[in-house]
Amino acid sequence: MNDGNDLPERIRTVAGMQARTAAWRGAGAQVALVPTMGALHDGHLQLVRAAAAVADRVIVSIFVNPAQFAPTEDFAAYPRDEAADVARLAALGVDAVFAPAVAEIYPDGFATRVAVDGPALGLESDARPHFFGGVATVVAKLFIACAPDVAIFGEKDYQQLLVIRRMAADLGLPVAVVGHPTIRSADGLALSSRNAYLSPGERTTAPRLHAALQSAADAIRAGGDVAAALAAATSELEASGFAVDYVALRNAETLAVVADPRNEPLRLLVAARLGRTRLIDNIPV
Amino acid sequence: MNDGNDLPERIRTVAGMQARTAAWRGAGAQVALVPTMGALHDGHLQLVRAAAAVADRVIVSIFVNPAQFAPTEDFAAYPRDEAADVARLAALGVDAVFAPAVAEIYPDGFATRVAVDGPALGLESDARPHFFGGVATVVAKLFIACAPDVAIFGEKDYQQLLVIRRMAADLGLPVAVVGHPTIRSADGLALSSRNAYLSPGERTTAPRLHAALQSAADAIRAGGDVAAALAAATSELEASGFAVDYVALRNAETLAVVADPRNEPLRLLVAARLGRTRLIDNIPV
Repeated sequence: MNDGNDLPERIRTVAGMQARTAAWRGAGAQVALVPTMGALHDGHLQLVRAAAAVADRVIVSIFVNPAQFAPTEDFAAYPRDEAADVARLAALGVDAVFAPAVAEIYPDGFATRVAVDGPALGLESDARPHFFGGVATVVAKLFIACAPDVAIFGEKDYQQLLVIRRMAADLGLPVAVVGHPTIRSADGLALSSRNAYLSPGERTTAPRLHAALQSAADAIRAGGDVAAALAAATSELEASGFAVDYVALRNAETLAVVADPRNEPLRLLVAARLGRTRLIDNIPV
Repeated sequence: MNDGNDLPERIRTVAGMQARTAAWRGAGAQVALVPTMGALHDGHLQLVRAAAAVADRVIVSIFVNPAQFAPTEDFAAYPRDEAADVARLAALGVDAVFAPAVAEIYPDGFATRVAVDGPALGLESDARPHFFGGVATVVAKLFIACAPDVAIFGEKDYQQLLVIRRMAADLGLPVAVVGHPTIRSADGLALSSRNAYLSPGERTTAPRLHAALQSAADAIRAGGDVAAALAAATSELEASGFAVDYVALRNAETLAVVADPRNEPLRLLVAARLGRTRLIDNIPV
């Protein structure tokens, strides 16, 4: 780790990043990567602290990936402030910030996609059909560029975590994909860069997303009917002004539809829109 | 290089292969990979010699990849004789043979594909729609497992060479993808494992594939009409008993349709069936 007094090195090229990691590895260091799209909040910083706890060298990537936004989504408006992000990371002793330009990741003639089925099917893919293709491709590239021993992702994007874990295992990339528990505000709202889009009134309503998940999980744990618990959560959210994309109970390891809720690891997942902001959350059951 | 007196080490797992290359690289060695599906012929051995000429350590992979065969194709019948292949490689001083089982490359739950557009569009893809998806996925995995500095492919499979070069560049895999000129019999037939399927009569006819390419290339070089040259080659081949899939002139670097034959690098490519055997060939113009 750098000692927190210097700014982390900013690396702009894939070749430069590969050379840096190779030098660290040659010196016996374990390397961790925290991939981000910038707009760093306390949730990201907790991931960075977790990375520093398991590795000798920490890379944070900052790349707002156009391939995972649909034309109607908020790519252009997505918040960007690299200088502020880097300053926050310096205080945590991050060694390198990998911040490539779009043309470095998607050069002229780029023609390759990494596509995942399995955990990528359904849920977020129903609302955002191109999302996981874009995520899997860019994260494969980040893993190849940064060559980390471990990569840390927030469980807030739970389906993404499982998609990336599957992709890395399937391609044989030698990286441990580790999920970190979701960081929440005191009122339960999962931290997300997109929370900045919420109006004050919406911000007051937003924690009901987590509360509805907790109620449904309690009902399911108590042996209640799964379909009834999910319907109740949906009704609660709609009554609060959410437009619900899904409230779903899935196998926590594969995201497959649950066959027997008493004999599988379970995860409860929700996506809903509040005004113009789409929020997601999930909890174990 | 091993000294040619010992059998090369046989490595069956991705993790084992990654560890071996990491150890070699740590000792300062340059590593070359020659990917094959076994059934090694003199063309493969020339690729291995080329690899040995540019690297300190040579890996040959032997993996008959089910994902690049359609259900109607010859996956089950494809010739396999690992012991004979390894013996031939030992004589060339190959250091390691990476020969994983199908379940090591495609484990239970495997859900990831690497897909390439660009050079993969048309030509072979018209006849074999799943082919390059299967090739790109397995070669990405072989590159990640073997982590070579250079990988050598025969130009006989020219479209495959360009697809793999594009895939490796797009994913940022730090490997130089090198094409080696096609090795031919004295009568001009490109060496191919599938030549073993030809009857004696078909084997006598097969060199006309290369001869037809040469005639068409000569006509194009002399300033003749491209469409007429391609049509003449098709007619010649059909008269000899071939069923022609395509005879095509393409940009030699991108495989794009040629806009101006006087101002682009050109490659002439052919695919045709002779009895039950599908043959491909190509030459520069």
